[in-house]
Amino acid sequence: MFMHNKRLQYTVRVSEPNPRLACMIMEQFGGADGELAAAMRYFTQGLGEDDPGRKDMLLDIATEELSHLEVVGSIVTMLNKGLKAQLAEGQLKEAELYLMVGSSGASAKESILFGGAPALCDSAGVPWTAAYVDSRGEPTVDLRSNIAAEARAKIVYERLINITDDPGVKDALAFLMTREIAHQKSFEKALYAIENNFPSGKLPGVERYASMYVNASQGDGDVFGPWNSGDEWDRVDDLAAVMPVDGGEGVATVELSASDKKAASQLAGRTQSDTDTNPTTGADLGAGPGAGRTKNGDMGGVDRISPGPSKKRG
Amino acid sequence: MFMHNKRLQYTVRVSEPNPRLACMIMEQFGGADGELAAAMRYFTQGLGEDDPGRKDMLLDIATEELSHLEVVGSIVTMLNKGLKAQLAEGQLKEAELYLMVGSSGASAKESILFGGAPALCDSAGVPWTAAYVDSRGEPTVDLRSNIAAEARAKIVYERLINITDDPGVKDALAFLMTREIAHQKSFEKALYAIENNFPSGKLPGVERYASMYVNASQGDGDVFGPWNSGDEWDRVDDLAAVMPVDGGEGVATVELSASDKKAASQLAGRTQSDTDTNPTTGADLGAGPGAGRTKNGDMGGVDRISPGPSKKRG
Amino acid sequence: MFMHNKRLQYTVRVSEPNPRLACMIMEQFGGADGELAAAMRYFTQGLGEDDPGRKDMLLDIATEELSHLEVVGSIVTMLNKGLKAQLAEGQLKEAELYLMVGSSGASAKESILFGGAPALCDSAGVPWTAAYVDSRGEPTVDLRSNIAAEARAKIVYERLINITDDPGVKDALAFLMTREIAHQKSFEKALYAIENNFPSGKLPGVERYASMYVNASQGDGDVFGPWNSGDEWDRVDDLAAVMPVDGGEGVATVELSASDKKAASQLAGRTQSDTDTNPTTGADLGAGPGAGRTKNGDMGGVDRISPGPSKKRG
Amino acid sequence: MFMHNKRLQYTVRVSEPNPRLACMIMEQFGGADGELAAAMRYFTQGLGEDDPGRKDMLLDIATEELSHLEVVGSIVTMLNKGLKAQLAEGQLKEAELYLMVGSSGASAKESILFGGAPALCDSAGVPWTAAYVDSRGEPTVDLRSNIAAEARAKIVYERLINITDDPGVKDALAFLMTREIAHQKSFEKALYAIENNFPSGKLPGVERYASMYVNASQGDGDVFGPWNSGDEWDRVDDLAAVMPVDGGEGVATVELSASDKKAASQLAGRTQSDTDTNPTTGADLGAGPGAGRTKNGDMGGVDRISPGPSKKRG
Amino acid sequence: MFMHNKRLQYTVRVSEPNPRLACMIMEQFGGADGELAAAMRYFTQGLGEDDPGRKDMLLDIATEELSHLEVVGSIVTMLNKGLKAQLAEGQLKEAELYLMVGSSGASAKESILFGGAPALCDSAGVPWTAAYVDSRGEPTVDLRSNIAAEARAKIVYERLINITDDPGVKDALAFLMTREIAHQKSFEKALYAIENNFPSGKLPGVERYASMYVNASQGDGDVFGPWNSGDEWDRVDDLAAVMPVDGGEGVATVELSASDKKAASQLAGRTQSDTDTNPTTGADLGAGPGAGRTKNGDMGGVDRISPGPSKKRG
Amino acid sequence: MFMHNKRLQYTVRVSEPNPRLACMIMEQFGGADGELAAAMRYFTQGLGEDDPGRKDMLLDIATEELSHLEVVGSIVTMLNKGLKAQLAEGQLKEAELYLMVGSSGASAKESILFGGAPALCDSAGVPWTAAYVDSRGEPTVDLRSNIAAEARAKIVYERLINITDDPGVKDALAFLMTREIAHQKSFEKALYAIENNFPSGKLPGVERYASMYVNASQGDGDVFGPWNSGDEWDRVDDLAAVMPVDGGEGVATVELSASDKKAASQLAGRTQSDTDTNPTTGADLGAGPGAGRTKNGDMGGVDRISPGPSKKRG
Repeated sequence: MFMHNKRLQYTVRVSEPNPRLACMIMEQFGGADGELAAAMRYFTQGLGEDDPGRKDMLLDIATEELSHLEVVGSIVTMLNKGLKAQLAEGQLKEAELYLMVGSSGASAKESILFGGAPALCDSAGVPWTAAYVDSRGEPTVDLRSNIAAEARAKIVYERLINITDDPGVKDALAFLMTREIAHQKSFEKALYAIENNFPSGKLPGVERYASMYVNASQGDGDVFGPWNSGDEWDRVDDLAAVMPVDGGEGVATVELSASDKKAASQLAGRTQSDTDTNPTTGADLGAGPGAGRTKNGDMGGVDRISPGPSKKRG
Repeated sequence: MFMHNKRLQYTVRVSEPNPRLACMIMEQFGGADGELAAAMRYFTQGLGEDDPGRKDMLLDIATEELSHLEVVGSIVTMLNKGLKAQLAEGQLKEAELYLMVGSSGASAKESILFGGAPALCDSAGVPWTAAYVDSRGEPTVDLRSNIAAEARAKIVYERLINITDDPGVKDALAFLMTREIAHQKSFEKALYAIENNFPSGKLPGVERYASMYVNASQGDGDVFGPWNSGDEWDRVDDLAAVMPVDGGEGVATVELSASDKKAASQLAGRTQSDTDTNPTTGADLGAGPGAGRTKNGDMGGVDRISPGPSKKRG
Repeated sequence: MFMHNKRLQYTVRVSEPNPRLACMIMEQFGGADGELAAAMRYFTQGLGEDDPGRKDMLLDIATEELSHLEVVGSIVTMLNKGLKAQLAEGQLKEAELYLMVGSSGASAKESILFGGAPALCDSAGVPWTAAYVDSRGEPTVDLRSNIAAEARAKIVYERLINITDDPGVKDALAFLMTREIAHQKSFEKALYAIENNFPSGKLPGVERYASMYVNASQGDGDVFGPWNSGDEWDRVDDLAAVMPVDGGEGVATVELSASDKKAASQLAGRTQSDTDTNPTTGADLGAGPGAGRTKNGDMGGVDRISPGPSKKRG
Repeated sequence: MFMHNKRLQYTVRVSEPNPRLACMIMEQFGGADGELAAAMRYFTQGLGEDDPGRKDMLLDIATEELSHLEVVGSIVTMLNKGLKAQLAEGQLKEAELYLMVGSSGASAKESILFGGAPALCDSAGVPWTAAYVDSRGEPTVDLRSNIAAEARAKIVYERLINITDDPGVKDALAFLMTREIAHQKSFEKALYAIENNFPSGKLPGVERYASMYVNASQGDGDVFGPWNSGDEWDRVDDLAAVMPVDGGEGVATVELSASDKKAASQLAGRTQSDTDTNPTTGADLGAGPGAGRTKNGDMGGVDRISPGPSKKRG
Repeated sequence: MFMHNKRLQYTVRVSEPNPRLACMIMEQFGGADGELAAAMRYFTQGLGEDDPGRKDMLLDIATEELSHLEVVGSIVTMLNKGLKAQLAEGQLKEAELYLMVGSSGASAKESILFGGAPALCDSAGVPWTAAYVDSRGEPTVDLRSNIAAEARAKIVYERLINITDDPGVKDALAFLMTREIAHQKSFEKALYAIENNFPSGKLPGVERYASMYVNASQGDGDVFGPWNSGDEWDRVDDLAAVMPVDGGEGVATVELSASDKKAASQLAGRTQSDTDTNPTTGADLGAGPGAGRTKNGDMGGVDRISPGPSKKRG
Repeated sequence: MFMHNKRLQYTVRVSEPNPRLACMIMEQFGGADGELAAAMRYFTQGLGEDDPGRKDMLLDIATEELSHLEVVGSIVTMLNKGLKAQLAEGQLKEAELYLMVGSSGASAKESILFGGAPALCDSAGVPWTAAYVDSRGEPTVDLRSNIAAEARAKIVYERLINITDDPGVKDALAFLMTREIAHQKSFEKALYAIENNFPSGKLPGVERYASMYVNASQGDGDVFGPWNSGDEWDRVDDLAAVMPVDGGEGVATVELSASDKKAASQLAGRTQSDTDTNPTTGADLGAGPGAGRTKNGDMGGVDRISPGPSKKRG
């Protein structure tokens, strides 16, 4: 059960209205790493958690994130307070409004659709979606996701601090940023309080694939580091030679019933491609004289792209 | 520059068509933790990365994830091969189709809209969205997100392995699951190869807020653990007493110009709420005799919810 | 600032696991009219509201809706508790799982992606989106939206009550349903506590268009009612005769600069359509002999669709 | 069956191209409260409605809203007409384009992706979604949603009127705004033409919960009004004392089968949290010397946040 | 199986940072017609395709599109390189940042959320969605979709070329644009290499409806062209006279069971609309004196909208 | 201006309620290729079109598609009519409902959220989005998109016809399917009535890249066809040899200012990766004894994946 006290967790002192900054800060209200995402991430995990300690921690932090959502929303409200009143009372000219809020993006939507009230959109005006919440119902997975989420939220606050000069806003953002650091520390402790937390889940993995490093991107720029070389790793450089790793043909097969086989064969016949004829196409019909290919000799510097003679059909 | 070899990274041997299983496995094709999400996560990070070692690693793994996307898509294709042919050739009756694929959800969409071909939707038929990709352009943040993403993908593969009895499918899924373990190990190495990787970013945080633990969820079930108690933590139990932590009033304020103040005052006056009168409402108009409140004595067991007399207006 | 008590607002007693019912009930957890939508609707309005009475009410109800979100999520968690454990421990066979949860839609996603933990998706597995929140920053508008939202939530709970036989679940749903009724009553009171609340906003509308009823759908089935006839209404039946109502030409025009005019003219010339020639098309190229039109006499009962001779070009 | 006449319902006279204003107005073309949302809301309700009078009204208004969609789209087309031609003919320099349309948000998308043609996006460039349509298949619910939707559309038009100085655009917007007022009046009449329209649906609610007001947000700012006090309300101020209202424990329970119990117990054991040890974490590994906590005495003004000694584990 | 070479398919030479241009170009990275959409469109088709020739072609082009995605992402990365560094190092003032990137829309999101790294969003900051991929599992359908998609991508590149003056960027965009032309040519060849490719699929259509042209939009502006007149077409001008074309009543009916009939009848009775009474409504309660209708004579120029006397109820 | 006649364009005769079929058919109501997508595609194009002939055609077909939307919605309404009444009157038991509509996916959402009324969702319950509308404001592009869209809609109707046995439904679907064929023919005529319609737009493309075919997918399965070989094509088989085609280095570069260079250098230094040390990681901390790598000899059949000795750092 939730309760609310009208005092904020942190006092919000905004120097002057600034709708543009408000839009930026909406990233932490209704954005991917914003406080709603944080609160819902931990709250849904807390509901599904059976371990008493983790459940308590998740509900503690979820609740605090709701208080942070309130602080962020209060900053946005203050930054938009002049705009909201002016729009509602109809006292701005077109040019004045454009100067105040811009004319497209989150700023337009915040003005026209939301009337200057805080909305659960990000800095581009995209509505918040629960697709941002990546809880998966397994504690060693979810705690890692929480650690990462706190790191993401921290860096977004850091960028917001970097772009504003308003001391009251900076101050509140610094508080919020720091709390993400504290939360990350809690989640780290909780992860390492679970024995055998790596790999996540119950199945151990196939040992011979667990130490293989596939050097799939090659050419200038290949680098050796602790993530791909040393005793822990079997490094695969010649992919074509050793793939597929299972020793099979590297193709996909399925056993079909007689009825399915027949239908598949009909389908294949009906949609067969004739590779031996050069058909006239819609593009051929539609191409004007300047669009077609004129002559080979015209290709200049890319003659080299076709090192041998073009292969022809038939 | 990408190149492709028509051999798969892992051979796919499916025992028989099974469109229901295909829908489940689509979770790893077009789902939140699926292979497209993985490939795009690392690929976009690789493009933006300047550190040679991390860039190489990110492009290696991104490329391998594309190969995994191909393996997963090939499994789905095989599981749907009979369905696709039967649908295209129009040889199923309504009841047969419902038995084969169900009639709603990913299975319906996969049949009717996609004709049995693999589609970038999850197991519920929701299209993939880049909202799943949480790269943030800071390596100590992104590597933590990658570690978490690999842990998530691992557990989803584990669940898929748990729900199928087809040995060829199990085999391929086990390969894919194990590669997520290997990738997590690489990302861990890369994270800890960066000095001072915690907290992420450049700003250090406000020290006095970094060790505070806010016990925001109280009552039976409070637990002490390393995430909220011990020397590292200043634990706040009496929130009402110590919040706001900044020592201010806990309210939000902004300095308005005279013009903004005037507009705000007009707006407030125009939309003022009359708290002293009990107005007739639309619900009052619309309520039939059975819907209104009859008498206080009727409330039985919840008499206790209002321990004192109700306060009245005026 | 939010606080949380681990006791629920309403005790949840579930008779037995039932993952199918869990998916249905997710409609009120992460669905369009679910408790998150309610909480966020009132919370964002409360943040932006300056009137003390409305602000207090909005924060009261927002907070209670969070407690309802917790109750609904707890029901879902209990209904999925067996499934979650079985999936995590890998002790189900494929056929058993399909019996238990189905194989596509919210049920598949809830199992495979979320591992049986409650997720902010609706009954079809679609993630919650802030597009459901229709707050607009004007109290006479937002209160009407709130009234409607409570009515919607009420009917969804009613349907859920209708489809379950579990007494503990029915009981909790009845509590939640009733609270929506109470909230609607509060919002009605608050709306009518604002003088001159119709029409919303400040601008009064153009009087002559405010009483016009446009009978745009005609034919059998036209009905007279208080919404379209009587002294309050000017009813328009002959649209072609009286439209456009402004007395103009009913076309759209704009004054272009000389430079824009020139560009527009070039564009028009470049993309002009030749209406006098019957070109061969891609479809003509692609149509086999059976697909073309053979003869007019073949058209049987639809001869009447072309009462006179077809008009020809040129 | 729909028919169309090429005359608009209202003549559109735009003074000069203005792509920025076009983006703003797209809010009513492809935005949440725009004309497509209105048309689809009433059209889908009309299809599902059996009452002859309401069906007729819904189809009348749905059809008129399509005509409004056409008017709004025509305004946008005119405002973008110069931009469209200039872009297509390639005669703008980079700087000129930026001046004309901005470089990000709806304006960029409207130019680059849509070429200046009207698109079903809102003022931020977010595509229209049917998530905006909140029809629920129950007339006393849907009519309330329609009333609210008309109020929302009215206020958005009012804001658009407030921000433009173009007389022809203002004129057309005033017509459209007024029609929303008229539609709201029709929907109000239709709602109150249903007897016993409150509460919606068939189930009456549990009486003792229908008059309870939960004062969930407390502290300075609590206000009494007709929505929470007076004879109609049982007001709950001491939540902790009287919750859960059902008189139970306020916990969630489910009866599990023996097999489920065993799996749940295994799962709990496998993922148990050790609350007695302070583990070394990834953050500990990653923190540089400057990031850790140095000493308690450093905390200055927040000493007070921990009024007693920190509790310790073990 | 995919492999990667760190050389780009086309060298990217950017003259100077330009975050605004970067946002525009994101349209082809994470936009509707961008390179990810192209790659995924062809890749998923290739996986599901059985015809060897088409499969090979689809995988060839899908792979090349991934290389194009890399080129586009590299352009964006270079254009944002200064911004990224400045933001991360915190050396910009608020005003400088606004000048550099704007403050809302894709530019804000690209800075604050993504830190200047390339993200799979379009020019408005909307995340990429697989809803853009319209593969349908039928080759004569999918090839037409591919042809259209290449045409769309071509025109978006053309617009981007038109709006930038940076020669290196123009050069790379011209390469990419041209490749779309080449791909369209390949898809056209592949479509016309299938015999009887029109109409798509197996069912031929009902002949009498296949040549009917319904002139559903009438009035000034009706034009005759090869698409609606001539021997190939039966043109329907008088819709009211000849519709429904099946010769039926033009209504929708269903046979209900007795139980369904009874429930439907109850439902109709319960929600019946009283068309004979003019009820007082919530709007009536809420309207102030200035909002009501005063007198008919006030309506001036729209007297004509109601040519005869208003019809009344009863 | 739109007008509506209550007669349908095609009479809908449904044999009996069938909510499962209703969900399937919703694909053409609110799905990607459904009638709303079609109507909106042509309507928005028609609004933006200046060529009189194309404008007329687009508005004709857009209007007819709205009538088709009505026919499809009427089919869905009839198929759900029994369900709607039973749900509203609360006369179904849990088990009966599950038999009737399933318990997850579009069927659940259609019942619980929409009460059996037609909703703008697809067969999986995903709300319609304007992301499906791919109009681009250039006629030779849009007409190709329209041709493809009609082909897609045709095949979806074909699949729906294939899966139902209800003769009245089959009949109506056959009408709708055939109209898509007719519309495709009109759009083909309109495309080829534009001279030089290929390539789309004004810029011609770089000739030497327009005939290049990049054989990016290699290995068993390479096929020669008219789309990649013959006189029209310069085929590139050895990608590594001839890429990048521009003759450059294949890298991305940008000229940075001194200030940007300095910030970039600081950023690089601060986040540098140490490739020479093998750090202890979080995964190392978390791995239990069974998860680590035990010995090389254990790897069996994949010994071959590492043909030479693993390279080591340092």
